Amino acid sequence: MVTYNDILAAQQRIAGVIDKTPVMTSRTLNARVGAEIFFKCENFQRIGAFKFRGAFNTVSQLSPEERARGVITHSSGNHAQALALAARTAGIKAVIVMPKWSPLVKVNATRDTYGAEVVLCENTIEARHQTTAQLIDRHGYTLVHPYDNDNIICGAGTAAVELLQEVGDLDFLFAPVGGGGLLSGTALAARGFSPHIKVYGSEPRLVDDASRSLEAGQIMTNQQIDSIADGLLTNLCERTFAIIRLNVEDIVTVAEEQILGAMRWLWERMKMVVEPSGAVSLAAVLSGQVPLAGHRIGIIISGGNIDLDGFFTLLQGKIKKS
Amino acid sequence: MVTYNDILAAQQRIAGVIDKTPVMTSRTLNARVGAEIFFKCENFQRIGAFKFRGAFNTVSQLSPEERARGVITHSSGNHAQALALAARTAGIKAVIVMPKWSPLVKVNATRDTYGAEVVLCENTIEARHQTTAQLIDRHGYTLVHPYDNDNIICGAGTAAVELLQEVGDLDFLFAPVGGGGLLSGTALAARGFSPHIKVYGSEPRLVDDASRSLEAGQIMTNQQIDSIADGLLTNLCERTFAIIRLNVEDIVTVAEEQILGAMRWLWERMKMVVEPSGAVSLAAVLSGQVPLAGHRIGIIISGGNIDLDGFFTLLQGKIKKS
Repeated sequence: MVTYNDILAAQQRIAGVIDKTPVMTSRTLNARVGAEIFFKCENFQRIGAFKFRGAFNTVSQLSPEERARGVITHSSGNHAQALALAARTAGIKAVIVMPKWSPLVKVNATRDTYGAEVVLCENTIEARHQTTAQLIDRHGYTLVHPYDNDNIICGAGTAAVELLQEVGDLDFLFAPVGGGGLLSGTALAARGFSPHIKVYGSEPRLVDDASRSLEAGQIMTNQQIDSIADGLLTNLCERTFAIIRLNVEDIVTVAEEQILGAMRWLWERMKMVVEPSGAVSLAAVLSGQVPLAGHRIGIIISGGNIDLDGFFTLLQGKIKKS
Repeated sequence: MVTYNDILAAQQRIAGVIDKTPVMTSRTLNARVGAEIFFKCENFQRIGAFKFRGAFNTVSQLSPEERARGVITHSSGNHAQALALAARTAGIKAVIVMPKWSPLVKVNATRDTYGAEVVLCENTIEARHQTTAQLIDRHGYTLVHPYDNDNIICGAGTAAVELLQEVGDLDFLFAPVGGGGLLSGTALAARGFSPHIKVYGSEPRLVDDASRSLEAGQIMTNQQIDSIADGLLTNLCERTFAIIRLNVEDIVTVAEEQILGAMRWLWERMKMVVEPSGAVSLAAVLSGQVPLAGHRIGIIISGGNIDLDGFFTLLQGKIKKS
């Protein structure tokens, strides 16, 4: 299992390539919750999400043979861009298998901006796996799984380490949970920094597999996968579940309306573009399910990639030629 | 005329009440322009705009008699919220005269969030002046003009001072110009910090009164006042024009499409909610009218207050009950 020292080593390895993201605060929010809240803003990270940390940590440890053949992954979005940029930075080839319903902004960024080869597949998890396996068979690519990978987990954990090193000890730390890479990395980082920090996961009530997994003591899946938080639709794997069981206090689930409300608050009041998945932890904090008054609370904002086409088309219609 | 030392004194006076806003950078943008660009992000300032600096600097220097009577201003938006919060912070009354077409988010923030008394008036500059004058006659309020005020200019200049103190010397510094408070404060701050910094104003081509004023050597006004950059529709006053003539290199004008393009870039790529007026300086930089390659460039992002109702209504329609 990943250790705190592995995360610290990852932090050294990726320093200077990743961006040290700012910690943001809001007097209004602190007054509202009666607590001190620190946002670690990975929406400001390169590619717009924490995923670049793990991707670069992984790519930078490949053998020369693996580098020569290139890397591959399947991802609904941020991990795709992250691996694409990490590979480009390391000077190696990246192939990304993406479901057809991926937001256009993410497909374009992966292919055009970061220069990866994108292979689109059907919208099922099985199709993703199959397409990826076929390409690995044929070309010998190294699979970089979005979360079932120790180096990815270590990289993800560096965001929490940075936060804690900057603001000092915390009482609570919230991170969203989809496949569990960010949450498990965050939990190990917190445990290593200070054993008394209570780490909570947060997820949409519509896809509450992580919450049910903790309750059942085994990995559960979702009947439907439909939430505005499109980065959190995946299930835990044994690797992340094992870490989360041991190191996470609980998972807080929130309604879609709460996610949207938290997101709106971050946009309107803190002027940050945050994707729905990135707003789930604030939604959990604001839901009042965990008594937080009087405490120091960290929140990992996981990313800010969201399709703004509709909004800017609206604005475009309002302007006059000049 | 305001001096550099006045701005430094203002910086001391407002420290701890204003937020020291972060400086953001983008590797992608730097590569695109071939320069090093530093954004001073006043969209993250309290009330979402630089205006709080000047408002608090002014309010904190009122006499006991003036404090007892309260303050008044007319403003299309950010200055209104700024004075409202500054007054509340200082424990005094604020009355804000606002035109009826002000964005709802700004009216609400001024009245509900910051507790000022809002008086709506007709949509003309004359109506604003008249309504304000009547209220001053009746109640003895102190007028805090949005820019025709040395303390406002000093406060506005503290953003540039903070930027320069953090990143060091710059070759160019861009700020938007409406009434000229921010641009004149910025220019005086830059001159004081390092005489060789070239300060440029930026404004929409549709309301290019500042550009024409510099050319004509006297204050010009606009035939129409219609730009997406609703914070920049006002004209210079003698006080700001005198400073700008002496200390600003030139005014760069940009098309509405360029403003929207720059704004979209800031949202999509830098994950910052920036209002159109706040994006005008990046539009000026990207327009290529000033040769900037190889240089160190500062850009003041003036604010991030924009009505997001339409966007979130759109998202609201997409979510399911959970």
